[in-house]
Amino acid sequence: MDPLSREQALALDAADPLRGFRDRFVNNDAQRIYLDGNSLGRLPLATRDRLAALVAEWGERLVSGWPEWIDAPARAGDLLAEHVLGARPGEVTVADSTTVNLFKLCSAVLDTHAGAIVTDRGNFPTDRYVLEGLAARHARELRLVETPADAVAERGAALVLLSHVDYRTAELADLAALTAATDADVVWDLSHSAGAVPVDLRAAGVQLAVGCTYKYLNAGPGAPAFLYVAEERQAQLRSPIWGWFGQRDQFAMERDYDPADGIARFQAGTPPVLALAALEEGAKLTAEAGIGALRAKSVAMCDLIVALHDAWLAPLGFSLGSPRDAARRGSHVSLRHLEAWPINVALIERAGVVPDFRGPDWIRLGVAPLYTSHADVWDALDRLRGLVERGEHHLVDAAPGRVT
Amino acid sequence: MDPLSREQALALDAADPLRGFRDRFVNNDAQRIYLDGNSLGRLPLATRDRLAALVAEWGERLVSGWPEWIDAPARAGDLLAEHVLGARPGEVTVADSTTVNLFKLCSAVLDTHAGAIVTDRGNFPTDRYVLEGLAARHARELRLVETPADAVAERGAALVLLSHVDYRTAELADLAALTAATDADVVWDLSHSAGAVPVDLRAAGVQLAVGCTYKYLNAGPGAPAFLYVAEERQAQLRSPIWGWFGQRDQFAMERDYDPADGIARFQAGTPPVLALAALEEGAKLTAEAGIGALRAKSVAMCDLIVALHDAWLAPLGFSLGSPRDAARRGSHVSLRHLEAWPINVALIERAGVVPDFRGPDWIRLGVAPLYTSHADVWDALDRLRGLVERGEHHLVDAAPGRVT
Repeated sequence: MDPLSREQALALDAADPLRGFRDRFVNNDAQRIYLDGNSLGRLPLATRDRLAALVAEWGERLVSGWPEWIDAPARAGDLLAEHVLGARPGEVTVADSTTVNLFKLCSAVLDTHAGAIVTDRGNFPTDRYVLEGLAARHARELRLVETPADAVAERGAALVLLSHVDYRTAELADLAALTAATDADVVWDLSHSAGAVPVDLRAAGVQLAVGCTYKYLNAGPGAPAFLYVAEERQAQLRSPIWGWFGQRDQFAMERDYDPADGIARFQAGTPPVLALAALEEGAKLTAEAGIGALRAKSVAMCDLIVALHDAWLAPLGFSLGSPRDAARRGSHVSLRHLEAWPINVALIERAGVVPDFRGPDWIRLGVAPLYTSHADVWDALDRLRGLVERGEHHLVDAAPGRVT
Repeated sequence: MDPLSREQALALDAADPLRGFRDRFVNNDAQRIYLDGNSLGRLPLATRDRLAALVAEWGERLVSGWPEWIDAPARAGDLLAEHVLGARPGEVTVADSTTVNLFKLCSAVLDTHAGAIVTDRGNFPTDRYVLEGLAARHARELRLVETPADAVAERGAALVLLSHVDYRTAELADLAALTAATDADVVWDLSHSAGAVPVDLRAAGVQLAVGCTYKYLNAGPGAPAFLYVAEERQAQLRSPIWGWFGQRDQFAMERDYDPADGIARFQAGTPPVLALAALEEGAKLTAEAGIGALRAKSVAMCDLIVALHDAWLAPLGFSLGSPRDAARRGSHVSLRHLEAWPINVALIERAGVVPDFRGPDWIRLGVAPLYTSHADVWDALDRLRGLVERGEHHLVDAAPGRVT
């Protein structure tokens, strides 16, 4: 069978061991193809049910729910540790946003080490902003270099902040090699890999990491983030934000601040109970599917995007913005085009395909192996090819700065 | 009619202009009397429906929901500003936890002023912990004084952090007088007043405040907190946590950090969309009832607790832990007793009354005027009197440190 045929895509879907997961997500528009799970994951049916149950539980149990709810950050953390991150129980917690967790871990590192702060220029904006703020606050030099490899080659660094998967190019960094290449503390942002790319933090020698849960972990818009500190570093590092959920014996309220042992010391305020339940359900689906199977399917689908790009899109002025080699790529493929912005708008409005756009000229096509199919990929690329061939991207309102 | 009779309590309920609000909250246990809305508010029916709708919206709209969701922090903030806080549009936003917001505002003040940090020893633990951390970080003296009045009398202070309502005693601080009494910046924690006590931040000359939304604002367990910065201070102050939701033109991602104008600069990471919807519904109920009517009913019910305490409980060894004068009291009344802990356990387990306990000997009885009735108060105190008279608090498992 022609490897680029729709029949072949359907055959791969029929043989897909994960195909049953697709029906465990809400999808009320069968015509729309969603390739933006790298930005916001779909709603699992189990999450819809769990949230309804938890809202009812709030109404019924009121404060008597707290003895159970209070463990939710640790419970969700342990679930991620075991099934998603390759960490030990007690090394991961869920709290705050990715930005706040970056602030906490990076600040903790700077409190203990002298030296510069380094990241790559292409790192995600909030990562760079957090570092700019910390550099000013701690009076440290902030060095922006070209690549993660350049970052770990810098001398005199206290802190290197890197993303495991680059949010634009999908370039996949080598956790173990880069962590080992520097004496500085490396904080890893796993936002664009957790749930789609195997991560084995212990095996890679990673000691500090954060990440997002509303992308491949399907925990819902604005869901709280996770934070990992290797066991052997927990006693040494302290969050800059001293709060009552990080306090030892939290309800003995008369004492001075005395941080809890373990990962709990990186908590600050009251945990978001509803959102934590949503995350648990999302993480359970990922655990059930298994990260190995998810990765295999993700690679196959991204390879299909690359192949269809080469065959259909390169002649239309597209170029590949992501590594061709799957081993160096996360779970999305970026396509670049001089008219990327109107093409992106047309894809959504006229072709029923949802990618996402990052300026100036990046169209990201994300595959979420729990619910994206090979046929989705084939159909999306086919629609993309057709609309550009027909010049439909010249027919849409693509005023600059318009939000899609 | 005897002012301490159940008939009188029923008569007050019959005449209560807010009586219709009680049925707009979930209450599936008519026998249980909930006097802990000062810790976790009840679930509004409208919130249950709104959360279900918003979860469905996540499932259906996916990333296309963001153009609307992204305004939720400002929308919720403006609702609170107008109906709860006496602030102007654009002066309040909702983000993170109370603890993280305290950290942000207190840190911003210390970045601009030299001098000591002052609070009262009885302030809420997380408030004190945040200050301990900031004192260490900014190399400032932290002075713990006895009362809010003592705090503003300190000389050489840069920052005074005060709670509007004391979480144990319910003592109500005078926002305007205390703010005016010092040259230091006063950051107000409104966690125990917002939604139950009138707050007019502009009229009181308050410039900086934070507060909790899961108490009298009924936004759900672990709901995000609000943060207020007076318009005239917004340009001068900067959050220590530089994140992408605080950035001007957030999606123009290639630039250095440049904080947005206005209150948005105090945002950090991605806002918690589900929780913000819950807060909007809770705040709308408060707005509809009107803070004046809520306060009048709260005062009447707290006065009833005081009167019944005097008549029934003082002879049983109780003493009043809260001001007798309603003008100096928030929306709960604390009772103290040498056997407070076993009494608290017995109240919950044997009498179906839910108060809350703060060590070593404080039983807090909170009234939430949206759903607490005068009859609730009468019945709760009657059950409390009965169980102590019968010595039932000696029949429960009240091991120290047990969580209720």
